[in-house]
Amino acid sequence: MRSLLLKNVLLDGARTNILIENGRFCDLHAAADAAAETVYDASGEAIVPSFFNTHTHAAMTLLRGYADDMPLFTWLNDHIWPFEARMRPSDIYDGSRLAILEMIRSGTTFFCDMYWMVEETVRAVEEMGVRAAIGVSLMDRLGAEKIARDLEFLAGWKSPAPGRIELVVAPHAVYTVGPELMQRCAEAARANGQRLTLHVSETAQEVADCVRTYGMSPVRWLDKLGVLGPNVIAAHCVHVDPEEMAILAERGVTVAHNPCSNMKLSSGICPAAQLAAAGCNVTIGTDGASSNNNLDMREEMKFAALLAKVSGSSETLPAHEALQWATANGARAFGLDAGRIAPGALADAVLLDLSNERLNPNYNLVSNWVYAADSRAVSSVICDGRLLMQRGRIEGEEEIIARAREAVARLTA
Amino acid sequence: MRSLLLKNVLLDGARTNILIENGRFCDLHAAADAAAETVYDASGEAIVPSFFNTHTHAAMTLLRGYADDMPLFTWLNDHIWPFEARMRPSDIYDGSRLAILEMIRSGTTFFCDMYWMVEETVRAVEEMGVRAAIGVSLMDRLGAEKIARDLEFLAGWKSPAPGRIELVVAPHAVYTVGPELMQRCAEAARANGQRLTLHVSETAQEVADCVRTYGMSPVRWLDKLGVLGPNVIAAHCVHVDPEEMAILAERGVTVAHNPCSNMKLSSGICPAAQLAAAGCNVTIGTDGASSNNNLDMREEMKFAALLAKVSGSSETLPAHEALQWATANGARAFGLDAGRIAPGALADAVLLDLSNERLNPNYNLVSNWVYAADSRAVSSVICDGRLLMQRGRIEGEEEIIARAREAVARLTA
Repeated sequence: MRSLLLKNVLLDGARTNILIENGRFCDLHAAADAAAETVYDASGEAIVPSFFNTHTHAAMTLLRGYADDMPLFTWLNDHIWPFEARMRPSDIYDGSRLAILEMIRSGTTFFCDMYWMVEETVRAVEEMGVRAAIGVSLMDRLGAEKIARDLEFLAGWKSPAPGRIELVVAPHAVYTVGPELMQRCAEAARANGQRLTLHVSETAQEVADCVRTYGMSPVRWLDKLGVLGPNVIAAHCVHVDPEEMAILAERGVTVAHNPCSNMKLSSGICPAAQLAAAGCNVTIGTDGASSNNNLDMREEMKFAALLAKVSGSSETLPAHEALQWATANGARAFGLDAGRIAPGALADAVLLDLSNERLNPNYNLVSNWVYAADSRAVSSVICDGRLLMQRGRIEGEEEIIARAREAVARLTA
Repeated sequence: MRSLLLKNVLLDGARTNILIENGRFCDLHAAADAAAETVYDASGEAIVPSFFNTHTHAAMTLLRGYADDMPLFTWLNDHIWPFEARMRPSDIYDGSRLAILEMIRSGTTFFCDMYWMVEETVRAVEEMGVRAAIGVSLMDRLGAEKIARDLEFLAGWKSPAPGRIELVVAPHAVYTVGPELMQRCAEAARANGQRLTLHVSETAQEVADCVRTYGMSPVRWLDKLGVLGPNVIAAHCVHVDPEEMAILAERGVTVAHNPCSNMKLSSGICPAAQLAAAGCNVTIGTDGASSNNNLDMREEMKFAALLAKVSGSSETLPAHEALQWATANGARAFGLDAGRIAPGALADAVLLDLSNERLNPNYNLVSNWVYAADSRAVSSVICDGRLLMQRGRIEGEEEIIARAREAVARLTA
C-alpha cells in the first residue's frame, strides 16, 4: 500500500505526525513510528492545502513576455494568434510541462485548462503527477468537421488516470460560439458527465456585443440557452450586475476569478466578494502566462484579497477566506474532496519552510501565507499522496526548461 | 582598491564582463581577466538595478500578521499601538534586521524608513550593508521636550557611513503634526540639508479632517505652510485632485506609491500614472510589514503596474516604466546616482538566475522580472559594490530570524 508519513509537521498551530495512505489523509495524529513506505521529517515545516487553479491556458507559458502592455486587439491579432498558429503538438507538451513545473514550485497541484491539442497536455499532466481538468476548446471557426471530431473525442475519451485527469467541454465564449454550438456543448457535457468551462463577461466589449447580437448580456443569454448549471465553471465574470450574480448563484455556477489577468489587460475588476455573497462558489485562476505573466496562485490570492478590500473594506475577504477560494472552493468545483487537511480528503498539500523570513514572526500562518510569502517558502509539494517536489527538487526540471527553450527558439526562428 | 568583476553576465540582452571599483560601475565591457579583488562567475545570470523602497517602517516586521482584516481604527488602537508601546530599542534593531534580510533577499538595497529609536535602525543598516534614509518621526503628542531633543539630534547627527546612511526629518502627517511643528520640521530639513518625508492624503478621512480643521486639503495646506519642495518624499497621495497633482509636480515633490498597503487597508487607489503624467517623480514603497505584509518590491511593482492598467488602459505603465519607478526614480529622490547599470553609477544591483522557470522563455527580461518572477529568481545582490547576498546566502541569516523570534516571544508573553 502506497503510504507517506509526515513526521512532526505543524498543523493548525500544533505539531503532529500525519499518515497518508493511497493518496488520502488517513490519520492526522499518527504514531511517530507508524509504518509507512516513505517517511518525511517535516520538523521545520507546516502543512497547508495546495492550490486549485481553476482557469489557465498552460501551454501559453511559451508566450510569457512575448507581448505586453498593448491594446487587447493588437495583442491578440498581431502577436498571440500568429504565434499560436505556428505551435505544433510537441510545443503544447513542452509548454504544459513548463507550466506544471512552475505550478508545482508555487504550491499548485490542480489546474483547469483551456487550450488546443489536449492530448499533449494530458500526457504532461499524467507524467508530472498533478491533477487537471483539461478543456477541449470549441468555437465556430473550427468548422463543422473539426467540431464533430472534437465532440466525438470528448464522448469517447477514457482517462489514463481517473480521479486525477478529466476532460472538460470548453466552448470558448459567447462571441466565438453561436447558440447552436453552445447548446451542443452543454448537451455533450451533460451526456458525458463532464464539466463545462467558458469565458463569461470578461470585457465590457463582450457584454455590449452580446447585447447587440442577442438582445441580452452573456449570463442571461447563456441561461436562456440552458447552459448554466452546477457543472459550469465561468471564467472572469468581470461585468455582471446583481441580477446576473443571482442567476449564477441560483444555477450553482462556479466563478473562476482571475484578478491579475483582468487588471493587466485592463478588462475591469470582477465583483468577486459580491458574487460570493450572492451564493456563488468563487474560486481563483491565474489565466495564461501571456496575460499575467505567471501561474502563481499565492500571488493571485493576494491580488484577490487586496482587490476585494480596496473595492470594499479592510474587512472584506479575510486571509482564511481568500485561501479557501484558492483551495477548497476550487476542488469542490471539480467534485474533488480536497483543499483541506482532513481524514479522508485527497492528500494534496504544501509543506511550508518555517525558517523562511516571511513566515516570521508566525502569529498567523494563514495571514503570512496569503499576504507575505512567495514561492521561496514552499519546501515540498504533495499530490495524490506523492511528493512531487521534495525540499525544492522536482524531477526533470532542467530538461523541461531546456526543451521549452528549444521550442521557443524554433517558433521564433 | 575594493573591486568586483562580474564575468559573463547578461546585460541588456548581451553577455559581458562588468568591473566594479570602489562601489561604482567602472567598465561595462571589461576584459575577462581584468584584475579584481573578487571575481564572480555570472554565466547563468542577468544583471538589473536593485530596488529603492521609498516608504516603509522596517521594524514593523515584528508585527507581520499580528492583526489583519479589520477596520483601520481598531487595527491601530487595539493592536498596533499597544504592541508598539512595549517595544524597546533591541526590538527595533531585531525588527530592522529581519526587514533588511527580507529586502536583500528580494533585491532591495535601499529603504526610506519612518519609525522610532532610529539609532537602532542605523546600526542594523550599517552592519548589513544596505543603504537607507532613516526618518526621525515627529508628532505633537511626543511633547515639547522630546521634539526639541529629536530636532537637536537631527541637526547634530554625523553619518557613520556617509553616502550610504542618512537621516530624514519625518513629521508624521497633517493630523498628528500641527502647523508650528510642521514648519519647524521643514526649516530643520532645509537648515540641515536633509530630506523630509511624511504621510500625505492617505485616506479620505484624513482629507476631510484637514479640510474641516484648516479649510483646505493636505497638499494645499502643506504648500501654504511652505513645506513642499524637491527634498520632500510624500507617501501615499491616494486622495489628490488634478490641481494638487500640479502643485506636487511644481514643487518637485517625490511621491512614494504604496499600492499593497493602500489596498489592504482599503484606503483607495493612488492615481500614480496621473501623478507621473503631471510631472511628479513617482517611486514605490512597500509601507510596513503590518499592512502589506511583506517588503517585496518586485511584488509591489507588479501591483503598481496592474493597478495603473485597470485604472487606465493595458498600455498604461509598461513594465520598463514600472521598473524605473521602483529603481532609478527612488534613487533620484534621495540624490543617489543609482538604479541604472552605467559607468559611474553606484554599484547597486541584482543578479537574476536565468534558469528560474519564470524567467523562461526570455523574450523580455524586464517583463519577466516585473510581471512573472518572484524572489526565487534573485541569485545575488550587490550594494555599494559589495555582495550582500551571494547565490542565496546572506551572512547571519539564521541568527537574525532566531533573535526576531525571541523578541516576539517576549513582546507577546
